[in-house]
Amino acid sequence: MSNTKEVFGMSSSVEWRIQVGEGSKEILVPEPKNRVQRLLAALQGLFVDFTLKICNFFKKAWKIGVDDPRKFAHGLRVGVALCVVSLFYYMRPLYNGVGGNAIWAVMTVVVVFEYTVGATLYKSLNRICATCLAGFLAIGVHWVASQSGTKFEPFILGASVFLLASAATFSRFIPVVKARFDYGVTIFILTFSLVSVSGYRVEKLLDLAHQRLATIIIGTALCMVTAMVVYPIWAGEELHFLIIRNMEKVSDSLDGCVADYFKDDEANPNNDEACSKNLEAYKSALNSKGSEDAMANFARWEPAHGLFTFNHPWKQYLKVSAALRNCAYCIEALNSCLYSENKSPDFVKIHLGDSCSSVSSHSCEIIKELAQTIKTMTRSSQIDMSVMKLNDSVQLLHENLKSLSTSLIQEEVPQSKTNENAHKESVLTVSLMDVIPLVSFASLLIEIAGRVEGLVEAVEDLAKLADFKPAVDEKPGLKSIN
Amino acid sequence: MSNTKEVFGMSSSVEWRIQVGEGSKEILVPEPKNRVQRLLAALQGLFVDFTLKICNFFKKAWKIGVDDPRKFAHGLRVGVALCVVSLFYYMRPLYNGVGGNAIWAVMTVVVVFEYTVGATLYKSLNRICATCLAGFLAIGVHWVASQSGTKFEPFILGASVFLLASAATFSRFIPVVKARFDYGVTIFILTFSLVSVSGYRVEKLLDLAHQRLATIIIGTALCMVTAMVVYPIWAGEELHFLIIRNMEKVSDSLDGCVADYFKDDEANPNNDEACSKNLEAYKSALNSKGSEDAMANFARWEPAHGLFTFNHPWKQYLKVSAALRNCAYCIEALNSCLYSENKSPDFVKIHLGDSCSSVSSHSCEIIKELAQTIKTMTRSSQIDMSVMKLNDSVQLLHENLKSLSTSLIQEEVPQSKTNENAHKESVLTVSLMDVIPLVSFASLLIEIAGRVEGLVEAVEDLAKLADFKPAVDEKPGLKSIN
Repeated sequence: MSNTKEVFGMSSSVEWRIQVGEGSKEILVPEPKNRVQRLLAALQGLFVDFTLKICNFFKKAWKIGVDDPRKFAHGLRVGVALCVVSLFYYMRPLYNGVGGNAIWAVMTVVVVFEYTVGATLYKSLNRICATCLAGFLAIGVHWVASQSGTKFEPFILGASVFLLASAATFSRFIPVVKARFDYGVTIFILTFSLVSVSGYRVEKLLDLAHQRLATIIIGTALCMVTAMVVYPIWAGEELHFLIIRNMEKVSDSLDGCVADYFKDDEANPNNDEACSKNLEAYKSALNSKGSEDAMANFARWEPAHGLFTFNHPWKQYLKVSAALRNCAYCIEALNSCLYSENKSPDFVKIHLGDSCSSVSSHSCEIIKELAQTIKTMTRSSQIDMSVMKLNDSVQLLHENLKSLSTSLIQEEVPQSKTNENAHKESVLTVSLMDVIPLVSFASLLIEIAGRVEGLVEAVEDLAKLADFKPAVDEKPGLKSIN
Repeated sequence: MSNTKEVFGMSSSVEWRIQVGEGSKEILVPEPKNRVQRLLAALQGLFVDFTLKICNFFKKAWKIGVDDPRKFAHGLRVGVALCVVSLFYYMRPLYNGVGGNAIWAVMTVVVVFEYTVGATLYKSLNRICATCLAGFLAIGVHWVASQSGTKFEPFILGASVFLLASAATFSRFIPVVKARFDYGVTIFILTFSLVSVSGYRVEKLLDLAHQRLATIIIGTALCMVTAMVVYPIWAGEELHFLIIRNMEKVSDSLDGCVADYFKDDEANPNNDEACSKNLEAYKSALNSKGSEDAMANFARWEPAHGLFTFNHPWKQYLKVSAALRNCAYCIEALNSCLYSENKSPDFVKIHLGDSCSSVSSHSCEIIKELAQTIKTMTRSSQIDMSVMKLNDSVQLLHENLKSLSTSLIQEEVPQSKTNENAHKESVLTVSLMDVIPLVSFASLLIEIAGRVEGLVEAVEDLAKLADFKPAVDEKPGLKSIN
């Protein structure tokens, strides 16, 4: 056994193992090589592995860019912005103007230029304000310290750095500061420390502050303009479309899940892959909370753009998405019904199938209509009608569940007549046990219908807050909003 | 109407409105004041508002610190580290050693010192490696450019900045780069741009690079040592305990939910608040995915600490937490059953109540045992037994559901004898409809039991990967792991 292990340890040479009979193994080792050859083979293997990994990495990277070309575009934008800011070093007049501090312009571009306009604005404005605030505060402290004599000066400066840095660092744990001013706090501590400990005289400091502020403003202005003009990617718009996409995915999943539950097992097995992809789509809604929160935070910094005003109610989008997640939790539970045993007799499946499908299709229709409402920012004239239809279908499902008990009993009456008591009981028992999964499935659908109404309320609140256009009255029977 | 609005607009003065009869309103305006008085009152109101807000803000901040004093401690640590690094400016010999570049040490401390050791190490190592890499690359490009004559030099430098910055910015969209090297990429672009465009000769650049690297190493070393020595907060440990806490919360929620469902409505209404707090506890597991992912990312940078080795399988923790979230989704659906109408007759409640409670209490016991397994990093000797017990209780619940149909029918036989057909049907119907919520509740519990077994598997994998201590054999009946 230990021998086998040893041979296996030589990962470089190729080996073939053949099982002869039970237990005994023969190991076919290729003709013995000398050490150098083995080392070369090992190196070659490593090199091939490494090359393959690198190739895979680049393939994946390329795919990411092809799937969303704006990511390529963002890389190019940053490159262009950096080249433009580098001009400060090459063009002599400008260089003389801002001196060696031009370094701050380059640095600013690198650290504040983010993917979305909102994030860039957030960082830019935070950087400017925090630099100003910390700069003035530091100059004030510096002046006080310089007035108190050389003995006390280092202590006053040290104590002020210690106190302000500690307090500012702690403030980052406060949710509202974290959400809106996290970057600003870092810059505040940075600027305050740099100015306080720099040891310059106040006059020189003012000069320095002036230069630094000028370069930072140049850098941030360049970033803000580039971000807003060259292929702008608005955090608000991203949030808007992310939520719409998630709504469509949740609707597809619900639809697919119910269709899958009631489908004939033999019918069209080729569709399975596409179907299971749809079934899992709702997970996107479950997992996007983090990015939604971040986008809503950035969106508040953005000026009016496209259909959105400056004060667009981004927070309400988070409530819509929470209501949508609420539906998705239930769809998760519904999905697990697909994999549990379901031996419901066919007549029960048929009995409940139509009304279940009706509840799900009305729910899906409503979710899609709500997605359309948000997309077009126009109230839907049909949403009330759809909600009524959904309520009717839920009512019908309720009634079918009620009548199910009657039909179950009726089924058993003839059997219990022909057979004896023992048989009668077992028939009864199997029937109720067998329909339980289906009944649970139906109950979950009813719960989902309730949660869809919660989603309707959230979207209606959004429509009020964001002042969506009133519904265009359409002729009845003419449904072509899409 | 417009008058009323106007009066309402004067937010500063206090007004009382009395509704007299229908529609007509009298507005009681206090004795007229002159403009200055009103302005003063308005200012006073604003000042009071502002003071209140500030007070609230500080109260909240204080509470955050009191709830977790390590947050205060972190603020103090950063203050101390900054004061220590400031010494470079005050102590002349050191100042001469690293020159004006000591600014980089201060800057390094401000930007790399994070709350957890893992995050600090991640930023420190990224900063050092990226600075080295970009520095050498930039010096190389600079040398090539300087050899190609003054005409081409700016173009070569500009093109290299453009290409590398674009590629590096794009690489941040690749998940693995984003997770491990995001900060490093920023520093890479920053250093490369600064060195490339600085316009210094290569000899001076080498000197500068040496100094800058030295100060950065001083800054990062200071941060790493402070983070690891003074009140260290390990990301791995945080993740470890977060998951344990979430497991306990999920278990409490499940327990509370089932107890609440079967409790007498009259019994002890005072407990309601504590109970509903418990019921919502599972949400913590649903919402902590983002922070868990971040912590697992940082934890991989941490050296061995406490019970954890350097190669502790942090990724497996994410799988455990995913399995736990899977349970929590179902508990979410279970929770909604509490608020839906439940008119199940008492005898059915009693019939199923015990077996439901048994499934839930065994599930809770298992989740708590798993939490204990992770906490003590010792395999539990009783987990197999507990899983068996859970399976038995699920089996019992299945059987009770089976026998439910019999008992429902039996209940109805005497009634159908005394009354006519019409009555018989309605009784049957009401019974089945009325038990549907309870049956769904029971099915969800069975589903939860299945998911708890998924959690057991995830924790067992963790135990294997992390080499948990083998179970200590305990005398039967002696249960004192806690």
